Parts: sequence; C-alpha cells; structure tokens
Amino acid sequence: MATLLIKNCDWLVTQNQAREVMRDASVLVENGIIREVGRIGSSADKTIDAKGKIALPGLINAHTHLSMTLFRGFADDMLLQNWLQKKIWPLEAKLTGDDCYYGALLGCAEMIRSGTTSFVDMYFHMERVADAVDEVGLRGFLSYAPIDLFDPAKGKLEKERVIKFHDYVEKLANPRIKFVVGPHAPYTCSADMLQWAKDYAEKQQAILHIHVAETRREQADMMKHNGMRVVEYLDKIGVLSRNMLAAHCVWLTKSEIQLLAKAGVSVAHCPVSNMKLASGGVAPLPEMFESGIAIGLGTDGAASNNSLDMFDTMKMCALIHKAYRWDPTILNAQRVLDLATIEGARAVRAEDELGSLEIGKRADVILVDCNTPNMRPIHGVGTVVSDLVYSVSSGNVDTTIVDGKVLMLNRELKTLDLHGVISATQERVDKLLRK
Amino acid sequence: MATLLIKNCDWLVTQNQAREVMRDASVLVENGIIREVGRIGSSADKTIDAKGKIALPGLINAHTHLSMTLFRGFADDMLLQNWLQKKIWPLEAKLTGDDCYYGALLGCAEMIRSGTTSFVDMYFHMERVADAVDEVGLRGFLSYAPIDLFDPAKGKLEKERVIKFHDYVEKLANPRIKFVVGPHAPYTCSADMLQWAKDYAEKQQAILHIHVAETRREQADMMKHNGMRVVEYLDKIGVLSRNMLAAHCVWLTKSEIQLLAKAGVSVAHCPVSNMKLASGGVAPLPEMFESGIAIGLGTDGAASNNSLDMFDTMKMCALIHKAYRWDPTILNAQRVLDLATIEGARAVRAEDELGSLEIGKRADVILVDCNTPNMRPIHGVGTVVSDLVYSVSSGNVDTTIVDGKVLMLNRELKTLDLHGVISATQERVDKLLRK
Repeated sequence: MATLLIKNCDWLVTQNQAREVMRDASVLVENGIIREVGRIGSSADKTIDAKGKIALPGLINAHTHLSMTLFRGFADDMLLQNWLQKKIWPLEAKLTGDDCYYGALLGCAEMIRSGTTSFVDMYFHMERVADAVDEVGLRGFLSYAPIDLFDPAKGKLEKERVIKFHDYVEKLANPRIKFVVGPHAPYTCSADMLQWAKDYAEKQQAILHIHVAETRREQADMMKHNGMRVVEYLDKIGVLSRNMLAAHCVWLTKSEIQLLAKAGVSVAHCPVSNMKLASGGVAPLPEMFESGIAIGLGTDGAASNNSLDMFDTMKMCALIHKAYRWDPTILNAQRVLDLATIEGARAVRAEDELGSLEIGKRADVILVDCNTPNMRPIHGVGTVVSDLVYSVSSGNVDTTIVDGKVLMLNRELKTLDLHGVISATQERVDKLLRK
Repeated sequence: MATLLIKNCDWLVTQNQAREVMRDASVLVENGIIREVGRIGSSADKTIDAKGKIALPGLINAHTHLSMTLFRGFADDMLLQNWLQKKIWPLEAKLTGDDCYYGALLGCAEMIRSGTTSFVDMYFHMERVADAVDEVGLRGFLSYAPIDLFDPAKGKLEKERVIKFHDYVEKLANPRIKFVVGPHAPYTCSADMLQWAKDYAEKQQAILHIHVAETRREQADMMKHNGMRVVEYLDKIGVLSRNMLAAHCVWLTKSEIQLLAKAGVSVAHCPVSNMKLASGGVAPLPEMFESGIAIGLGTDGAASNNSLDMFDTMKMCALIHKAYRWDPTILNAQRVLDLATIEGARAVRAEDELGSLEIGKRADVILVDCNTPNMRPIHGVGTVVSDLVYSVSSGNVDTTIVDGKVLMLNRELKTLDLHGVISATQERVDKLLRK
C-alpha cells in the first residue's frame, strides 16, 4: 500500500463539518484515501513538504465544456445568438475526435495548474475526452450531449451515441471517470429525449446534466410554445430528479426554485459565463440556499469565460452577488469556497468521497503558495479562507494531487508534456481556421 | 547611452492610435526611451528574447492605497461603515511610517509581478511610500491624503503635511515619482481644504486626486446638507479642473457627467472594489465615454479588492458592464485594455510619455508568457487583445520593465528581496494585531 505524507502545511483548510482551519498540519494518504489529518508523527513512502503553503480540497468545476478551450478568445464581445450561429457552430461542425482530445488535454493542463481536481463536462467526441482525462489523472464526470432538435430520427441516433459513450466509459473502468447523461437543454431536446435520458441516468445511477434557464429568451420561448416556465415544463414531463445537475438556472421564479428543491435537483452556478454573455440577471443564489438546493460552481467552457480558473470564478461569484444585492454580507468567502468544494461535491452526489480533507475521503488536495506578495500578510486562522477567495491568483497553486497521485509539483506538470500539448493544439487550431 | 533590445515578441500590442498588433516584432530602448518598434535588425547592450511572449505597455493602476496591503483579507464581507469604523480605522491609527514602507514594498512586489508599472496612490506616511517606490523602480503618482473633517486647525496641520511631502518628493528628484495632491473626499474635507488643494495642485502642475461619489450615502448626505449633488457642489466651490482625477464616480447623474466632462476632469474606475464593498450600482462608463472623459482603471487598496491585480480588474470591468447593461458589446476587450494603458495615461495627464509602445515614449513594457495552457490557442492578430483581457492570469506576466530597467525577468524580481519583504511585513502585521 503506497503512502504519501503532505507535511507541515502552514494552514490546512479542511472544509469539514466545522469548517476547521488547522495551523501547521499534515495529511497522510494511503492508496489514494486520506487516513489522517492534523499533527502527524509517522513517515510515509513519499513526502511533500508543504511549509509556506495552504492545503485545501481540490476544487470541483461543476460545469464546463472542456474541449472548447480550442475556441478560447475566438469570438468575444458578441451577442449570444451571433456568437453561436456565426462563430461557434460552424467551427464545431469541423471538429474531429482528435481535435477534442487535444482541446481536452489543454484544458486538463489548465485545470491542474489552477487547482481543479474534478470537473463535470458536457460535449461531443467524448470518448476522446475520456482518453485525455484517463491519461492525465484528473477526475471527470463526463457526458455526451445528445441534441435531437425535436426530430425522432435524430433522437434515435443521439441515444445510441449516449449508450456508446457509456460502454466506452465502462470499458475504461477508471474509477476517476464517471459516466454522466447530458441532454443539452429543454430547447434543443424533445420531451421524449429528456425522459429517456432521465430514465437512463436513474438506471445507471448517473448524474443527469442539463442546461436550464440560462437566458430570458429561453423562458420567453418556453412560455410562448408551452404556456409554462422551463422548470414547470421539466416537472410536468417528469424529468426533475435527485440525479439532475442543472447548469446556469439564472432566470428562475421562486416557485421554480421550490420545484427544484422539492425534487432534490442540484445547480451548477456559472457567474463568469453569465456575465460575459450578458445573460442578464444573476442566479438567485440566496433563495436557492434557503431552499436547501446543493449548488456547485462552474466556469462553463473556455469559449465563454475565457478561462477554466475556479479561483477567478470564486472571486467573481462573491463580487457579483454582493453588487447585485447591494449587500457585502450576502455571500461570504466561506460560502463561496464551499460552493467550489464540499457543496460542489454534494451537487455531483459525491460528498462521501470528495470536497473536504477528512479521513476516508479521496485524497484530492491542492497546495497554494502563500509566500507570494499577493497572499501576504495572513492575519490569522479567521482570514485564510478569505485570502483563498479574494487574493489568490491561480498562479499561486503550487501542487495538485488527485487520488493521492501528484499531477503537479512546484508548478511542474507530472502527467503531461505541456509544450507538446500546447504546440499540437495550436497547430490543430491553425489548421481548423483554414478549413 | 544604454540600449536594450526586447526581441522576437510573438505579438506586440502597441496601443498606438491605430491599436496595431504586430507579429514577431521587437522594441529598441535607449536610455529608458523607446527608439524603434517593429522588425529591428540592430543589436543592443542588453537583449531580452521575447519568443513565445506578448509585449504590451505596462499597466497603469489609476487608484490605489498601496500600504493597505497590510490589511489584505483582514476584514471582508462587512458593511462599509462597520468595516471602516470597527476594523480599518482603529488599525490605521497604530500604523508607523515603517509599517507603511513595508506595506508599500509588498504592494510594489505584487504590482511588478502582475504587470503594473505605474500607479496613483493616496494614503499617509507617504514619504516612506516614496522611499519604497524610489528603491524598487516603479512609477508612482503619489499623494498624501489631507483630511480636515471641517476643522480649520486640523486643516492647517494637514496642509503643512501636504507641503512637507511635496518638499520630500522634490528632494528625491526621481523623475519616476510624481507629486500628487490628494484631498480625501468632499465628505471629509472642507470647501477651504478642497479649494486650497486645487490651487496648490494647479500651481505645481500636479494631479488633484480625490474620491468622488463612491456611495449612495455620500450623495444622500450631500443633498441633505447642501441641497445639491456631489459634483454640483465641487463645481460650485470651484474645484473641478483639468488636473482632477476623480476616483470611483459610481453614483452620478448625466448632468454631473456633463459637469465633469466640461471641466476636463478624469475618472479612475474601480469596479472590483465597488462590487466587493457593495457600493451598489455600476459607474456609468458608456455615458462617460460618450462625453469624452478620460477614464483610467484602478484596483483600489488591497483591503477592499483584495489584490492589486490589474488583469483581474480588467476582466471584472468587462464583465460587470456587460452584465449590468445586458449587452455583451457595451465594453469590448480593446476598450478595457485602453483603460488600463493609453486611457489611463490620459487620465493622469501622461499620454505623451506613457500608455503605449511607440517611439519617444518611456519604455514601460511587460511581457506575458503565451506558452501556458490558459493562453492557448491564440487565433490570430484579432484575438490577442481579447486573450489579454479575458484569459490571462497575472501569473503569466513574465517580465516587467520600467524606464528600460528590468524589474522582473522570467518571474524573478530584480530590485527587491521578495522573501525579506514578505517576512518583514508578516512580522510587522503580527505585531500590529497584538498592539
């Protein structure tokens, strides 16, 4: 049994029930599982000295489209429909599986370097995304996104693709890669597709990942066509469920929030993407908290963010809610860190395994260097979480560990050839633009 | 005459009139001044190879309180008045000049590492801040902030302090350090103080830096006490002027904007601080643009941000205006980069010397590493500016040059002992908290 000791962390942010922050503490890992947390005397097969560093649970990105790193910066400052129709969709139509593989590798490199250890993905050519995640060592909740555009023939093909991807994941048999069912959205999928996806997900005990109420237009169109709001529609057709992870949820009424809460649906909040695409409004987080909904935090794809930086997203999340509600106390740093860790774990139904540094959990750990000017001074145990949310730049992430395996140490990536990935991806995109 | 060649930049973002972005270009510097830009054959005393990097003008932070790095993270998620009265002011009362010196050094280190080369500061113990800036090699527009609280006796003392600081700057005779007059705000300074400050600034051809209309309360109080709005008051007492750089300007009417524009006042926009302190509202940038006001971008102090990271502030600036106006086109990446460079230079009346990479300007240059996962791919000349605003993490800043002098090369600070500064500052703060 391989053991790893992460010792002498200046601060250890456990994210346990009491949200304990320990001083000069260590973590002992055995076979990928946390065995001890605190003052630890014993030695291990391998030791990482974390003096001058803050240890915290690896961050959980609850909504992204990993391979869209390929489109980072390609088309900014545009209206959503122009952006999709004129820029993104034509380019997406040309993508190959290998393109998506390299886009995913690039995204993995970015996530490892910015402290993300788990992510929920939705895209296509997902077999190749799974390959990338398998190689690199991150934890992926991966979904192929069926879109039937209300066409039964297309629907049939798309269901087969979901099943094919499921088989692929089964064969990989990598416990870090979880199969997720990802019907794109109520406005791109028929009721039949959504119902099928819900049943399939339940049968496989998989997450049902879907976009919900990202824009006003989506709500207006739903009302026009079906005489009800988006969540009411999902309720009516019977697809709200405890497995559902609904991304965005910006344009909800209080009664829609109640429907989500009653059904046990989780939400992936994506503040940066919502702001950048000017979806307008701000997701009603305080009301969701009140109703007990599990909320994770997502970057969304790099085409609409344009980074996969969860530290950036945490800060933005804290700020937009304060600004929007004219209340600096509405969402404090602890709560924001929760969204990116333990609440994110709850949102993907993995709170028994992920989201905190506690005995028995998977050893997904990151170290943040606090001997940098932007992280100093530290005023004490009560301010460390605040420093993580408001002061960190993702470049301060020093070490990233998943399942006890070191993916980055002292900023050096251990499981992928960064320069190879960067040049291969750049070449592929240059070719894609000439196609 | 010492020459420096920054050669083979993958991309060179000039920020010249045409906003030209060059491919594979170089910059030749002689005695701190840019002598050539483009394809350059000649050699130099010293050469920096910028292959794989983007060169751009050093960023200009138009509003901060540098030594407040000491209070970074000390008191977050609080109501503004509680924050000031219970936390910040009691601690500020204990500060010594040496504390402010170390706080300033720490802030300088942070700015150099995140690509800021010029900044506008307002605080106290400013002689020691000037010492730090002098040593480290940044470009500072420095003001002592007189506050008379409408007490003539206090006012007299405060004026003497302004003059004393002015003398100090004169004696330093460092062309990188500019004396600025910084009356704190209309709600903390009497009309007499504001008028004196305006006259003094004009006589010295100095910037007149002041907080204006940061909060609703400030406007409400002004209306109650003087029956007019803040900018109307400043106009009535005759202190609006071409020298004025007004920080915040969140709560303005269109007619106040017209008054500012007519007088030639510049604005320092601080979106992160405004959001974090939940000042509410968003500064009316589109209306200010329309009226021709010069606008710079500021981080505000680290106690209310909590970083001095201008890349972070640029992204947040782009996002908050899109979200607020429900329009992704309202503030594009080019315009945001302008705020942090050439428009910022105009806001501090230094557009002839700073803000762009053009022949004859001071060689304030930064290099951003684009061989990092979060900066790839780059889709071409049209997207580089977008990548700088939306994708960069400040850790991508590789090299920082002021007046042709290298302050950081390959992330290594050249003009200060980082670990010495960090430990000295941490020790001082630990002591301060025990006082």
